[in-house]
Amino acid sequence: MTDLLRGRASSAGPPPAALADALRRAVTLARRGPARDPNPRVGCVLLDDRGRTVGEGFHAGAGSPHAEVVALAGAGTAARGCTAVVTLEPCAHTGRTGPCVEALHRAGVAAVRYAVPDPTPSAGGGAAALAAAGVDVARLPDDEAEELVADWGATSRRGRPHVTWKIASTLDGRVAAADGSSRWITSPEARAAAHALRSRVDAVVVGTGTALTDDPALTARGPRGRLALDQPLRVVVGARDLPADARLHGPGGQVVHLRTHDPAAVLADLRERGAHRVLLEGGPTLAGAFWRAGLVDELLVHLAPALLGAGGAPAVPDLGIPDIEGAARLELVSLDRLGPDLQLRLRPLPARPTDLEV
Amino acid sequence: MTDLLRGRASSAGPPPAALADALRRAVTLARRGPARDPNPRVGCVLLDDRGRTVGEGFHAGAGSPHAEVVALAGAGTAARGCTAVVTLEPCAHTGRTGPCVEALHRAGVAAVRYAVPDPTPSAGGGAAALAAAGVDVARLPDDEAEELVADWGATSRRGRPHVTWKIASTLDGRVAAADGSSRWITSPEARAAAHALRSRVDAVVVGTGTALTDDPALTARGPRGRLALDQPLRVVVGARDLPADARLHGPGGQVVHLRTHDPAAVLADLRERGAHRVLLEGGPTLAGAFWRAGLVDELLVHLAPALLGAGGAPAVPDLGIPDIEGAARLELVSLDRLGPDLQLRLRPLPARPTDLEV
Ligand SMILES: NC(=O)c1ccc[n+]([C@@H]2O[C@H](COP(=O)([O-])OP(=O)(O)OC[C@H]3O[C@@H](n4cnc5c(N)ncnc54)[C@H](OP(=O)(O)O)[C@@H]3O)[C@@H](O)[C@H]2O)c1
Ligand SMILES: NC(=O)c1ccc[n+]([C@@H]2O[C@H](COP(=O)([O-])OP(=O)(O)OC[C@H]3O[C@@H](n4cnc5c(N)ncnc54)[C@H](OP(=O)(O)O)[C@@H]3O)[C@@H](O)[C@H]2O)c1
Repeated sequence: MTDLLRGRASSAGPPPAALADALRRAVTLARRGPARDPNPRVGCVLLDDRGRTVGEGFHAGAGSPHAEVVALAGAGTAARGCTAVVTLEPCAHTGRTGPCVEALHRAGVAAVRYAVPDPTPSAGGGAAALAAAGVDVARLPDDEAEELVADWGATSRRGRPHVTWKIASTLDGRVAAADGSSRWITSPEARAAAHALRSRVDAVVVGTGTALTDDPALTARGPRGRLALDQPLRVVVGARDLPADARLHGPGGQVVHLRTHDPAAVLADLRERGAHRVLLEGGPTLAGAFWRAGLVDELLVHLAPALLGAGGAPAVPDLGIPDIEGAARLELVSLDRLGPDLQLRLRPLPARPTDLEV
Repeated sequence: MTDLLRGRASSAGPPPAALADALRRAVTLARRGPARDPNPRVGCVLLDDRGRTVGEGFHAGAGSPHAEVVALAGAGTAARGCTAVVTLEPCAHTGRTGPCVEALHRAGVAAVRYAVPDPTPSAGGGAAALAAAGVDVARLPDDEAEELVADWGATSRRGRPHVTWKIASTLDGRVAAADGSSRWITSPEARAAAHALRSRVDAVVVGTGTALTDDPALTARGPRGRLALDQPLRVVVGARDLPADARLHGPGGQVVHLRTHDPAAVLADLRERGAHRVLLEGGPTLAGAFWRAGLVDELLVHLAPALLGAGGAPAVPDLGIPDIEGAARLELVSLDRLGPDLQLRLRPLPARPTDLEV
């Protein structure tokens, strides 16, 4: 009778405040997972009808069980009839660990609340599958949870990591003087911003040309050269070997040497390693190859108020553009000053129709 | 006795309000002179002791009598004992028309009030010479009068006109694509600003390379191609002839073809023609020669958010800079947006000492 009065399962279950608390906890759990991983970070909390936690878990990265599976294992038979609060829509596909939808249903979970819809075409449809199996399922939107999967979702949609091509050049588009020297074109302020950027991406990529010429450490460093906590993968692309004493082999992120000339292969490899954000630091040859392959999502230009003249090395190599109509057009997204230098953030635009203006 | 009570000449003369009115009138008169002239624009009003105008004049350009001489001629003997109000300190040198100091003294002028000190070393000293001759002389500062002679004064101090090098380039420092096409790199907004700038300068200068390749009109045009009222001199530098049907020979400012490769000779010629502000519009060869000669006062860059790649023509030619320490450094003076493009105004900095920052 009380059951009838309370209505169907949808109106039963833990009180709203308990659900909200559980979602906060699930987000906190999710953060324990690795930021750089082919899989998204997910947290899960199982609540009984009175709002008590009967199990919880997070996904510890590709190859480990999903958050829901961990939580169910902890709860055992207590999972029956409970509500699962998850940061991400449970997966419906059969991956390395089997679909979570099936595990939840098999354990007798009565209701599922998830914060972010699964953006992957292959994994999506979990909510629909749960509903079809008679589970009460609904979305509980949450900004923090969105943020947690944003990079990963974008990588999924794009099928590869996001690529920022960073150029530090003079006003006249030069990255090095006639003798090859390029230290320093930009100001200490611009270089500090470049280091901060490195610690926010998953991988920093250069060609062997830059690695051999400049011998860069490719680490994210703070004032006085202190290594930042978050270090990106250090990726060198090209066939040539690096000397054993290259600065790249010093302390910092893992070093990955990819002996290929194919930008798409580089990104596929980095995606496999869990990278969502890639910073392409040059040089011109490698970056030009990414550009021509259409694999640059953003151009970040640090422009120094200086001239080097046509004797200097060009920032941008030959792009095979025959005439002015073929110019690659970009949209200026933001403009900042970094000490004496300018920082331009631009997004490539699709090729535009012939300009009729005379 | 009344003379004794009134004290010396300095406390006699027209009432202050009459002096102020006369200075306004002198400025108005000065403006009737030619803006582009080797000589400054000057106006002069002669007042008797009761503040009545007894003569006035302005300088109609090199070769014509100075403003003071014109005013004295109009006043005749009425000039005796009166006060001359002049926008510029009277000249003490013997030029084509003889020094004004002598003319004022000879005419019996009792007092001189001038707004702007003469900035020319050769012509200066007029006030001191008048005082030595017993004339009551004092400065009456005035912003409008300052403005009137500012360009001319700067030209005098510098010994040549002010030079702005304008570049319209892509982000990667290209002014033309591989096939030489360069129309249009920048937006309609940037081109409108470029036309407005042309009407504010005295001369627009290009090399024969640009004249022959682009066949530019080098006029200041408004919307729908209408010619602006003020047209700069159109100056082409280089040995090669231009075709008779070049657009340069169409309606617009006077065309000057200087068959030299020497930037200093170009500026000397333009100064002789009365130019104070010169806009160097390229191409790279000519502009590079000006730069290396240290004859660029300002760089104006219209930067289009586009890439042309190293196959395109460089905006800045080889400047003979061997290493990064030799980079030409500039100071960013202002930054504006012109539609999708950026406008950077920069001033060359003196060569800086080695940067110790690592
Ligand atoms: N200011 C800046 O922003 C900046 C940044 C970076 C570099 N730089 C300057 O750039 C210069 C180095 O230029 P770079 O162009 O030689 O450097 P790079 O692009 O770093 O290296 C070129 C090398 O990358 C390999 N590579 C990878 N993919 C390729 C592809 N698709 N096509 C061709 N080669 C590919 C090749 O090496 P293998 O032969 O080994 O296969 C090639 O020789 C240095 O002077 C450096 O200082 C400046
Ligand atoms: N986007 C822009 O801002 C912009 C502006 C202008 C031009 N452009 C492009 O630039 C290209 C033309 O480049 P350019 O460098 O040939 O043009 P340029 O600098 O206008 O002309 C070069 C010519 O100037 C003469 N010259 C004068 N002084 C010289 C000196 N000190 N040293 C050497 N030569 C001197 C020489 O001609 P003689 O042999 O006749 O003596 C020389 O061949 C065109 O494609 C044009 O579209 C672009």
